[in-house]
Parts: sequence; structure tokens; C-alpha cells
Amino acid sequence: MSFAPQSTDAAAIATIRVLAADVVAKSNSGHPGAPMGMAPAAHILFSRFVNANPKNSKWFNRDRFVLSNGHACVLQYTLLHLLGYKLSLDDLKAFRIEVTTGPLGQGFANGVGLAIAQAHLGAVYNKDGFDLINNFTYVFCGDGCLMEGVSSEAASLAGHLQLGNLIVVYDDNNISIDGDTAVAFTEDVGARFVSYGWQVLSVQNGDSDLAAIANAIAEARLEKSKPTIIKLKTTIGFGSKEQGTHGVHGSPLKADDIVALKTKFGFSPEQKFHVPQETYDAYAKVAKRGAAAEASWNELLASYGKKYPTEHAELTRRIAGKLPEHWEKSLPVYKTSDPAQASRKLSEIVLTALTPVIPDLVGGSADLTGSNLTKVKNSVDFQPPSTGLGTYKGTYIRYGVREHAMGAIANGLVAYGGIIPFVATFLNFVSYAAGAVRLSALSKVQVIWVATHDSIGLGEDGPTHQPVETNAHFRAIPNLAFWRPADGNETSAAYAVALKSNQTPSILSLSRQNLPNLEGSTIEHASRGGYVVHEEVDEDLTIVSCGSEVSIAVEAAKKLKEQGIKTRVVSLPCWLVFDQQDQEYRLSVLRSGAPILSLEALSTLGWERYSHEQYGLPSWGASGPYLKVYEKFGITGSNIAVVGKKVVDFYKKKGGEVVSPLIKAFTL
Amino acid sequence: MSFAPQSTDAAAIATIRVLAADVVAKSNSGHPGAPMGMAPAAHILFSRFVNANPKNSKWFNRDRFVLSNGHACVLQYTLLHLLGYKLSLDDLKAFRIEVTTGPLGQGFANGVGLAIAQAHLGAVYNKDGFDLINNFTYVFCGDGCLMEGVSSEAASLAGHLQLGNLIVVYDDNNISIDGDTAVAFTEDVGARFVSYGWQVLSVQNGDSDLAAIANAIAEARLEKSKPTIIKLKTTIGFGSKEQGTHGVHGSPLKADDIVALKTKFGFSPEQKFHVPQETYDAYAKVAKRGAAAEASWNELLASYGKKYPTEHAELTRRIAGKLPEHWEKSLPVYKTSDPAQASRKLSEIVLTALTPVIPDLVGGSADLTGSNLTKVKNSVDFQPPSTGLGTYKGTYIRYGVREHAMGAIANGLVAYGGIIPFVATFLNFVSYAAGAVRLSALSKVQVIWVATHDSIGLGEDGPTHQPVETNAHFRAIPNLAFWRPADGNETSAAYAVALKSNQTPSILSLSRQNLPNLEGSTIEHASRGGYVVHEEVDEDLTIVSCGSEVSIAVEAAKKLKEQGIKTRVVSLPCWLVFDQQDQEYRLSVLRSGAPILSLEALSTLGWERYSHEQYGLPSWGASGPYLKVYEKFGITGSNIAVVGKKVVDFYKKKGGEVVSPLIKAFTL
Repeated sequence: MSFAPQSTDAAAIATIRVLAADVVAKSNSGHPGAPMGMAPAAHILFSRFVNANPKNSKWFNRDRFVLSNGHACVLQYTLLHLLGYKLSLDDLKAFRIEVTTGPLGQGFANGVGLAIAQAHLGAVYNKDGFDLINNFTYVFCGDGCLMEGVSSEAASLAGHLQLGNLIVVYDDNNISIDGDTAVAFTEDVGARFVSYGWQVLSVQNGDSDLAAIANAIAEARLEKSKPTIIKLKTTIGFGSKEQGTHGVHGSPLKADDIVALKTKFGFSPEQKFHVPQETYDAYAKVAKRGAAAEASWNELLASYGKKYPTEHAELTRRIAGKLPEHWEKSLPVYKTSDPAQASRKLSEIVLTALTPVIPDLVGGSADLTGSNLTKVKNSVDFQPPSTGLGTYKGTYIRYGVREHAMGAIANGLVAYGGIIPFVATFLNFVSYAAGAVRLSALSKVQVIWVATHDSIGLGEDGPTHQPVETNAHFRAIPNLAFWRPADGNETSAAYAVALKSNQTPSILSLSRQNLPNLEGSTIEHASRGGYVVHEEVDEDLTIVSCGSEVSIAVEAAKKLKEQGIKTRVVSLPCWLVFDQQDQEYRLSVLRSGAPILSLEALSTLGWERYSHEQYGLPSWGASGPYLKVYEKFGITGSNIAVVGKKVVDFYKKKGGEVVSPLIKAFTL
Repeated sequence: MSFAPQSTDAAAIATIRVLAADVVAKSNSGHPGAPMGMAPAAHILFSRFVNANPKNSKWFNRDRFVLSNGHACVLQYTLLHLLGYKLSLDDLKAFRIEVTTGPLGQGFANGVGLAIAQAHLGAVYNKDGFDLINNFTYVFCGDGCLMEGVSSEAASLAGHLQLGNLIVVYDDNNISIDGDTAVAFTEDVGARFVSYGWQVLSVQNGDSDLAAIANAIAEARLEKSKPTIIKLKTTIGFGSKEQGTHGVHGSPLKADDIVALKTKFGFSPEQKFHVPQETYDAYAKVAKRGAAAEASWNELLASYGKKYPTEHAELTRRIAGKLPEHWEKSLPVYKTSDPAQASRKLSEIVLTALTPVIPDLVGGSADLTGSNLTKVKNSVDFQPPSTGLGTYKGTYIRYGVREHAMGAIANGLVAYGGIIPFVATFLNFVSYAAGAVRLSALSKVQVIWVATHDSIGLGEDGPTHQPVETNAHFRAIPNLAFWRPADGNETSAAYAVALKSNQTPSILSLSRQNLPNLEGSTIEHASRGGYVVHEEVDEDLTIVSCGSEVSIAVEAAKKLKEQGIKTRVVSLPCWLVFDQQDQEYRLSVLRSGAPILSLEALSTLGWERYSHEQYGLPSWGASGPYLKVYEKFGITGSNIAVVGKKVVDFYKKKGGEVVSPLIKAFTL
């Protein structure tokens, strides 16, 4: 195949530009400028280089494409349509009804994750003569993406990891929403990427020099030990009367401008959403090439299966997104007589048991490995072989102090397929990655956060490291399973549910301090998100809690019993999962008849949903040894017993029936 | 004064190193490595360069010092002690009881904010012969700080802004928590900072080449149009048996190691917390120099006052942290007959009215100026004059797409004094800056976030841009005033309270869509955080809401009235402020006797605190024109009337007294 310009290119590029203008005008909202500016690069990339089969968008070895400047999504939809993906002209006309764009910088880091995934899986499964997994990842991004810290973090790591399979096309159009980038973004982007260890290429005329675009992409593909960024000078809104200005960034072109644009490119001003047959024909050839590529790959995979049946079975299982059989048997199970341990340590025990069984698990920490306890014995670092520190077969990623990129890279890892990423930092610093975490949940991808040091129980590092608002924040994110296990079996349960939930990210919030194994705790119980740890008939009070405070609640219940106050204790490690149980079960756990008091060593916000009264932190935490800090805030068995007594007295005095907070007039 | 090495230096540096080891050993937690490694640089910086008066830590023109690698805080405390600040040896011995360290990267960006503040205030108030405001900002940081995206964002902006008053000393010790930085951080940091437009200097032997350290700092001070980073090669834990390794990063030195260290540096192994008299004497001279500097500055200020009385009065008012008299008279006030407007537009009207009256307001946006409406007419950009785009007198900062740095820079701006920063982005992207926002609240600094596009009401940008969990997140942060005003007077009230709260950051969550002016809304009412918008006697229902949904609640109340259901409407624009009102007032607003239904177009989490039933989003938002999106989720007057009826029926059927959710068994 030749990369050189062809006679059909001009019409195809004009079509993309005109379609972008039409689509945005029809929906009366959107961003025509970047799609019009990047049309040549998109056309060259997709018609010459991208290896993909429009008839099977899930083909595993396809090249990956990420549009990081997601507001330019019209460009992507247009290409998908031309290539024959399931996206009709009518879909384009209905733009905005069901589609969304991406927060800046995320896609860039997602691309790094996709590239890591290819490097890893290729290293694990490719064999001599079987270059099964060798795709490229292409990312389009704009100025905004490169201003965001998340992309800086990801770029530095990508350079360190020598990801030669990653090619970023940077739309260097000098325009962002505030106008010319001269107002805020005057750094030398190329030099910055050289400092990260990237190859930097330039295309001076990205508006029409198709040969230069093709040559740059071809050159990028040849560099095997460095990611490449291509600085593509383009004119935003090329062809519009307002080309090169902010006026064309985020608003539809005016009617007369569209007329002029169409006339300029030889289109009829009257025709809307027009695609010349020669353009469809040209793209049909591209699609055919992709289908052929998949067909030969499928043959290669079949012969691989004959020669390497074990690897083949494992790889196809991973591609299918299924867990190995009987993996759950490896989950650690605890008795109450087992010693108290920190849940971060219990997490390490789970990982030690599961990582040999589930090779899909690819872990890492943002420079807190020894504190997060995420690197299990004998695991190998994912590193470029030249560093001598590991290999691409390695399953442990050293993310550096880059929480936000770590979260976004994990989204890329899981999007690639065949990998279940777990990532780690202190719970408080998962907040640095909030932008990526909400996208995991929105995109329904399975990322597992190992979030240790989960409360004032972390002790000496003090309030800047002690989460307070954090649990309320993450519990309010739809489709995010926020777990705060109380002991060994609950930690195993959290992992079990997180591993089975392949449409849901999970945050496992884990203690630094030791936790005793509770009576009544089992993996099965905890897997329902909430259950009764300590039962009483005709109780006077129920205490609902989670994590390190459950054992304190149990202690308080014992003290209350001595005073004749019968107190149930409920553990509620995961609200999302508990809320998914049937109402009958939920009402058996948090039942009517006696007041319910919640207990957690963070902000009480949100606990009103599961309790009548709430105990927690009134404000920030404090620095000191953890027992002293708990004492300071009254989170001890004896004080909670005092509080519990107050609650019982208050409700007795108040009189009337005490109704479960779960009984509501309506459900959303 | 000579910068050259002196005979007393060696003892002083050894003292700092030994004190660091003693302090961490005594508290049995902390980080001795970086303080021991950076002792020479700290000593040279503080003894030769830093202009500050230990007897008055608030002197306005003092040099600012930020320890961005906050885990090295023992270093800072030791220096403060030696210099004679109010920090005794006993305080050092009690290390960890009341002090906390900083999340990585924040301090670096705070430093950029401090430097911007100096450049701005110097430009505004300095006159020929009156170089009143000319301090430097020094930042110490480590590898971790430079891996974080927030520092990349801040560094790029600092380079663009040509902040010659900013000097960063980078502790290039090649060690982070995961061990050698070779595992994850192999970029060329110097080249990266050159690409940002910084001056990069190197000190190859930061352990003992005191002359090189002094020369580098002196050279940095001479460069007036670029910030400087000094790459200081040091040996972490210098002097320890484990120097140069991760072993000395975050754990106390072993007892025998401390003995060897002290012996090596000529200290008695038996003596703990020993400071040689010659070291105290040397630092006393430094302190004296600082006191003299302040004294002459005070004289300069006094003569400035004679020549420029107006500027003097304004500057001293700003230094004192007082607002100008009668500023509140400029607040816009609305009648119900005034046209409906978006609260982002109402915010622009407030800023237009207030910025001429309160020059302390220094605003900016993360590249969303035209959407946030934060740049008022005729305001000038804060830009280096050489760009031709503005001047340092300008009060509008173009932050670029750098939300996290923007938040952290704002913390630096306000820490400097004399400035009230407001910063802007979409509400959803304030989450990118969560790490900085919680530190504003923890540090009690007055930063005002103008957070527009505050719900599904933003429409077409869709779920990636529509906040859902965001309000629960920010409402759970202690000492953060999260405002969601419903109309013109409430927007004025939000600004009024935010401006008066000089110990509290505020987020003003503002709509993209138009909001009618409510009957019953006044600045006075809304300033209490919550009030009754529509009153009824013997109501059947109260709807509590905020922001754009209050008018929908009013509409629902009207429809319910037609069915004979008397419905009060309460607006609750700020929970923090409402919670600060006396209980009698609060109970008059959210009273017992009838059920309370909450309404907000986001996650309902947390509303259980103020209501019996909650209506909101069940999951993510959707992309489309805003009225269609509201319709889709049932957030319309007619549907809320249906829901309200359900609530009334449910509580009638249930029977018994309906008690206000504010009535509790105890308070935290």
C-alpha cells in the first residue's frame, strides 16, 4: 500500500469538512473548528494507516484510536460513517441526542494505557512467527489536552516506558476557548516532549500537505523505542470565513459561511450531508483492507492455537473478558480466631492469592508501593527491558507520583481488553484522580482502586492526608462501588465482587491499622453490601458502620448490653451493592422498630440515608498516633456506647413508631 | 553582605542534620532523609538570602518560602527555631502533635501564586523611589512534586508569565518512596523547565559545595524575566549509614545510626536536640538583619504615605485584609419583575459592580472566560508587558486549561495577602482541582470559585460535563461554603457572604440557563443560607431546593395548591451557612408538622439531612437541549407536583407526627 496522495483525497477531505459544518449547524451546537482543521490528518490516518475492520469493531488486534480533544467528536463520527461502521447519515443528523464528549487530557492518558496494554499483552503472548498483538494506538489531541496536568503525567510515564507503539497527533492550531494560545500557553511543546523521551515530528502545513502528514505517521511507526508526537500545524475551521479564529471553535458556522464553504470545495450549497460516491468508494476499499487484515489474523490465531494451546486458551479467555474457572476458591477465608490485621495487609494477601490465578490483573501504585502493599512477592515490574528493571511481561506498573494519569491510564488498560487493572494510592489522593474515576464509572469500565490509609486511622500524616469528604464524594458517583471492608472476609468479598463486576469500577478503602476478624462476617454476607454482624431480638438500637469502625461498634454494643440496652450491629461495606439487594433483604438488615445510629470516622454526610442519627467527624482530622486520634474524636467503644444511650433515650422520649429510613414514598 | 562560605556554616548545617534525626526519632515518625539532604541549601538560603523578620512573621514585604515537599517539614521547623520564630526546642520535641504536611505538588503551585501576587501588587503600588513590594518567593521541592500534574501546569504558566521573582530549589536526590526514581521518573527535568521558559541552574554537589549553592541562588535573583529552578544534587539522609537510599526517606534513623551521625559531625552522641551556641549566634545575626530590613521598609512605607496618600491608604487597607467601606452598596438588587437571567450572567453583573470598588479582586478562568463570564468589561489581563497582551497591573489571569494549578495558585495568591482571588471553570471541572480545594478549606483561605454550568441544565455537552456527585463532594468538605443561588438576589448574597468570609473558601455554583427572580428572595434572606421562599400556614408539604430548581419547586407548589395541597417552598443555597444559624431559625425554615421533599437536579446524597424524601438524578445526566433533559428526568413543575402528592399521601397513610429532620438526639 502506498501512503502517497491520491486523486480521491481532496474530495474525501472536503467531504469531512463540509459534513462537520452541516452536522454542527443541524444540531445547533457543537465544535466545527477542530474537525475542519484536522480533516486531512484524519483522512490520511484512517485511509492509509489504521488497521481495523468496520464490520467487527471488537477485533482484538485492531489499531486503537482516541480522540482526546473530544469536543471534535464530529470528526470521529464522520470517519466511522465513511468507513462503514454502524453509524448512518441519519445518526449524524441526530448528533447530540445520545453522544457525549470528553474532558480534556483524559484521552491522551487513556492512549498511554492502551499502548501499555499492547506492549504487555504482546510481550506475554507473541511468539516467533506469531506477532499476534502488535497494533498501534493513535491519539488526536489539541492544545487544551496538553495544558492539563493529567497529560503531562501520562506523557512523562510514556516516555519512561519507551512506548514505541503510541503515536499522538497534536492539533497545533494556536486556538483555545479564550482565543489565541498566546494568552496562556507559550511553552515549547516539542522540547517538552523531547525532555520526556519522546520522538517529536512536525508537519508545517497540516491543512494541505498530505504527503508530509503521511510521511510523519510512517516515520512515527518506525520508531520502536519512543512514543511519537506529531506537531501538526493546522488552521482551525479551515475553509470557513472565520478560519484561524476562536469564532469557529465552538459555535456553528453561519448559514452564508456554509454556503461559501461548500462552493469553495465544489459542493452544491443546497445539498446537506452530501457524500460523493467516490469518497464512499475510496473508504470502501479501506474497509475491505481492514476486513482482510482481520481474516488473516484470525488464521494466525488459529494456527497459534495448534502450536500453543495453553497460551491460546488463556488469551482467548482474556479477550472474551471471562475470569478463569474456580478463581474464587483462591479467596482467603478467615475465622474470628485469626489475628487482627490491617485491611491493606488483607488486600495484599488477596492479591498474593489471586494474581497467580488471574494473570489479567495488572497492578501498580503512585509511588506508595510499600504503603499500599500492592506488589506481591516475585511479581515483576512492567518496564522497558533496556532499563534492566523489569520487562514488558511484568505485571506491576510503577506509576510515579501521578495519581490522575494513573486513573486515566487504567481506563485505557481496561478499554484495550484482556486486562483488569488495579491501581493504588492513599484514599485521600484518589481525589487527585477524581476526573478519571468518574469517567471509569460513566464508561462502565472495571478499574480497581486499592485506596489505603482510609481515615484518621492513618495517624501521623495528619489532616492533609486524612480523608473526610472523600467517602461522600465517591458514594455519590453512579455506578462506582465504594467498599470499606471491616475485616478479612469482607476484604475478600470486596475483591470478589469487584472482580465479578466487569461493568463497574471499585474503590477499596483500606485501613493502615489492624482490624479484628468479626463474628458473623463471611464472604457471602459481605458480598451483599451490608449484613447483620451482631443480631438481637427486640433491639433498642442498631449501629450501622463500616470498615475500621465496625469492631468499635461491636465493642459499644457489648457495653450497652451490660446496661440492658440491646444493640444490633450492621456492617455496610458497600452502599451501591447493598442498594442493589431486594427491599425485603435490605429491610431485614436496617429494620424498623428501633433507632439506627451510623458510625464512620469521616464526614457523616450521606449516612442519613441508612440511619436516624449519625456519628462521625465534625470537621478535619488531626495528626498523631491513631489510637489517640480516635480517642480525640470520641470514636471508641465507650464513647459510642454513651452516644448510643443518648439515642435510645431520645427516641423513647419522642415516642411513636420508629420507621426504617429505607421506607420511602417513592423511588427514583 | 557576602554570600561566601563562613566558618560557622559547617556547624550550623551539621546541627540541622542532627536535629532532623533527633526530632524524627523522638516522635517515632516522620521523614529525616530530605531535611538531612537539603540542610546545606536551607542554611545558605536562610542565612544569606531570605529577607524576613522572625519577630514579625506577617511583615508584608518579607520573602516567601514554601516547602512543597511538605514531608520534609522538620527542616522548616528547625530553621524557624534557629531564626528565633515562636517555635521552641520543646515544640520540636513535640513534633507531630499539631503539625501536618502537604500533598505533593501543591506547594510548587502555591509558590507560583505567591510570585504572581508580588508581581501584581508591585506593579500596582510601587513608584519611582518606592520599591515597596519586591520580595522573592523561594520554593523547595522534590521529585514527587515534579511528577504531579499540578506542578507541570503551574510551571508552564509561571514560564509564560515570566515570573523572575520565583526561585525553586529542586532536591534532585533520585529517591522517592518506591526507591530509585529510575523506576518511573527518567525525564530530563531541566530540559522540561527550559521548554516552559524557565532559567535552569545546576548545583552538582548540594551536600557540601556551599559556594555553588550561594552562587546559584544569587544568579537566580538576577534573572528578572524568567522563573528559575535550581537542580540541586543531594544525598538523601546525608551522614546516615543509609544515606542515598530509600531506607532513610520516611522512617526514623536507628539508634546506632544516630550515634554514628553525631560522632561524625562532632556532636556528643549523648546529647539530644543540641544547638551549639555559635549556631544560635550566627542565626541571631540573620534575624537582626531581618528586623533591620523591616524597620527601613516601614520608614519607606511611611514616606510613601506622605507622597501617595490614596495608594497608601488602599495598600494598607488591603494588607490589613479589610474590605473597602460601603462596598456592599454596590451589590445588585433585583425585583421579581426583572428579567430572568442565568446565574452565571448574574455573577458577571456582580463582578462588574464590585471589581471597580474592590481592587483586591483578582480573577481568572481556566480557558472558559466566555462561558464563565468572569472577565468584566475594560478589565486588563495580567500578562508580562513584553507580550503586548496586558500588564502586571492587570487583574485578569488567563490560567489556560489548568484547573488544578489554578486552584493551588489561588491558594498562593490569598496567602500572600492583599488579594481576594476568584477562579472559574465549569462546576464539573472543579473536581480536577479537588486537591487544591480541600486545602483552601483546611488552610482557611478565601478563594472564590465561579463554577458555571452547574447541572444537567448545561445541556448539550452531556454527562461528561454534567456534575452529579459534585455537590455532595463539596458539601462534605468542612469549612467550604458551597453556594447554589436561585436568582439575582441570591447570587448577590452568595458573593456578599463569600467576600465577608475571610477564613472560608466558597464555590458559587451557577447556571447556564435563565432563572426567574423569586418572590421572597432578598440578599438578607439568602445570606442566612436558607429561608422560606413561599410560605403557607398549616402546610401539607414543604419542598426544599436550591439553584435552578427553586423556581420549578415554586411552580410545583402552585399546581399542588390547585389540588388543595398547601406547599411551602424553601430555598437552601448554602448548607454550611444555614447550619451556622441558630436552631430556632433553622427549625422555622424546615419545621415539623409536614413532610419535606428535596429537589435538586443532581445526586440526592446528603439531602436526607434536610428532608424526608428526595428527588434528583437517579444516575448520570444526558446530552440535549436543557429543557428536554429536565423533562427526561422529571424535573418539571408538573412532575414534581405529582411526586409531591405521592409524598403527602404516603405520610398521611403512615400517620403519626412528622418531625423535622433537623431534630436530632445529639450534635457532633
